[in-house]
Amino acid sequence: MSDPLVVGMVGGGQLARMTHQAAIPLGLSLRVLAERADDGAALVAHDVELGSPDDLAALTRFAKGCDVVTFDHEHVPTAVLQTLEHDGVVTRPSSSALVFAQDKLAQRRRLSALGLPVPAYAEVREPADVAAFAADHGWPVVLKAVRGGYDGRGVWMVDGPLDALPGAAVPGSGVYVEQRVPLVHELAVQVARRPSGEMRAWPVVETVQRNGICVEVVAPAPRLSPGLAADAERLALRIAEELDVVGVLAVELFEAPGGLLVNELAMRPHNSGHWSIEGARTSQFEQHLRAVLDWPLGDPTPLAPVIVMANVLGGDDTDLARTLPIALAGEPSVSVHLYGKQARPGRKLGHVTAMGSDVVTVRASARRAAALLRDGREEDA
Amino acid sequence: MSDPLVVGMVGGGQLARMTHQAAIPLGLSLRVLAERADDGAALVAHDVELGSPDDLAALTRFAKGCDVVTFDHEHVPTAVLQTLEHDGVVTRPSSSALVFAQDKLAQRRRLSALGLPVPAYAEVREPADVAAFAADHGWPVVLKAVRGGYDGRGVWMVDGPLDALPGAAVPGSGVYVEQRVPLVHELAVQVARRPSGEMRAWPVVETVQRNGICVEVVAPAPRLSPGLAADAERLALRIAEELDVVGVLAVELFEAPGGLLVNELAMRPHNSGHWSIEGARTSQFEQHLRAVLDWPLGDPTPLAPVIVMANVLGGDDTDLARTLPIALAGEPSVSVHLYGKQARPGRKLGHVTAMGSDVVTVRASARRAAALLRDGREEDA
Repeated sequence: MSDPLVVGMVGGGQLARMTHQAAIPLGLSLRVLAERADDGAALVAHDVELGSPDDLAALTRFAKGCDVVTFDHEHVPTAVLQTLEHDGVVTRPSSSALVFAQDKLAQRRRLSALGLPVPAYAEVREPADVAAFAADHGWPVVLKAVRGGYDGRGVWMVDGPLDALPGAAVPGSGVYVEQRVPLVHELAVQVARRPSGEMRAWPVVETVQRNGICVEVVAPAPRLSPGLAADAERLALRIAEELDVVGVLAVELFEAPGGLLVNELAMRPHNSGHWSIEGARTSQFEQHLRAVLDWPLGDPTPLAPVIVMANVLGGDDTDLARTLPIALAGEPSVSVHLYGKQARPGRKLGHVTAMGSDVVTVRASARRAAALLRDGREEDA
Repeated sequence: MSDPLVVGMVGGGQLARMTHQAAIPLGLSLRVLAERADDGAALVAHDVELGSPDDLAALTRFAKGCDVVTFDHEHVPTAVLQTLEHDGVVTRPSSSALVFAQDKLAQRRRLSALGLPVPAYAEVREPADVAAFAADHGWPVVLKAVRGGYDGRGVWMVDGPLDALPGAAVPGSGVYVEQRVPLVHELAVQVARRPSGEMRAWPVVETVQRNGICVEVVAPAPRLSPGLAADAERLALRIAEELDVVGVLAVELFEAPGGLLVNELAMRPHNSGHWSIEGARTSQFEQHLRAVLDWPLGDPTPLAPVIVMANVLGGDDTDLARTLPIALAGEPSVSVHLYGKQARPGRKLGHVTAMGSDVVTVRASARRAAALLRDGREEDA
């Protein structure tokens, strides 16, 4: 074999950890830029560098010798990315695409300009802007950090006029306001795109959130009309193409009474696609690698009629060393994925995937396995 | 999470490489003792030590800090293993089980004593012993190295009396003689066993050899009667129990006109089980880890009616960097596994797995993908 290509991934969390796992059969070893030596990917990858994702010198060192650099998060500042690109580093996705996953206000503006459906929104500079928006759209409204929010952070439900903006909670980021969408369901659709333009889509999934955190994903979305599923796929493919995304693009959608609305974009493997590791012929992690290397994309067809992924969130005294054997014994057909993290209440410690033909049964298995991992008991909080 | 358990694997080849891949979702990082820094597993694992598997000092250093030590090959001398065990190292399987995978004559004797079916065999000390055996069983006979043979090495077809024994080809190993079995098919069955006694079996598979090297595995074995399949499974479970195997046991079988005969034993993940990575709910690599950690075993049920694994052997000028994109484009539904090795003619460089419902179609996909990887062309030599 000629020297293998080197894919560098900025960020050492569970997405990089699972991408390394997918890199092995492709003859690759992921090069990881982790912030800490005990980050999930840093514990398992062979080629790990330590450094901060906003440190240009660290990124420059890291990128040297990488054939392509990609990302497990959105935390590299746009200016830093642009400098790297100017210096010849191949970043996939590029800074000009990634900005629409980093800056939610820029995303709203761009998608609106393309005529794509987003919730009504407005820029906010002072508290009066919120009230003005609510005068048109009604209370409550949703305030969102422009950059840096995730897993429910950087999102505030607002019932009435404010004295001050909460933006200080997310340093360096402004906020914007958006209508509160009366939800039917939350959906996500993932597609992959390579530089040569080839694209593939996984089936649309339903995501279940609790306190702003995804707790469960059902693939394919069980209550979705074929028409809306096709709309969602078209929407995601169009976004990938218009924004020139390379790699995996996850489009989080609201299924609202009036139709689909885009919520967020992520240009990397995403929690809504973890089901694909066992559940699809080609997982999102393998596909992301194939896409950023401009290799032919794989077949995203699901391997079972129903696949359910449940996140394992830390409980008050989760001890995975104790609970893992309990979960393995209790659900021997469920696949377990642990991220190598210290347990803390509410922290995503791993996920489980169940497959089968009946959504009620499969969902029960996944929930039970996740509850056993968290508490060693079956109770599902 | 409490400090994760540390599983050490002696040997850094593709079996360790794929075991590391399976360790990641279980929250583990495999510790690998590799002979060379560019061994397949050494290229991808985080925790790699270099050392020879017959060097007691290297093994002792390596084992320190491992909760359990297991093996990707049979090359650790029995006396070295016994010393490690005496010093408190937990080896799974233990030296007293592993010897029956290392010493084929000991295996034949032990299985015969248990009343299990093996080909007629005899110890050989001098050429006359071969002729005496042939007088009873007819020419040709098969001479086999007692230790160290693999992939067709250490096996000699002999048509008539010999002047000298070929044992010198396998240093330190004697030879024994065995009847040439008129084959119907070659089969393999894999089971896993944990110290507490729990066992699980994957379906019996058919293996296809060329020049003594496995080139293809079809799971489940397509031409096997249910009765013989049940016999094979019972046989493997009985061997695992009688020999006190811990981990995965692969039993290679001849399906001969008179019934099943045991050919070889391997007490580790085995080429005949690579199909289980995508094709079974629990792969042999994950199951081996669960077994050696005495964790509950997983469900070995296949995920498709037919799964075919084809090995990718190096051709005269195989260049995987060139051929991988060709294979990915040509067979987008086939899973590719590369082992990170330099290409050499005849060397196992990787394998591919195809899944579906029709054995002819699935086999054709697997063969085509393997041929594309070897040569960049469809021809299947």
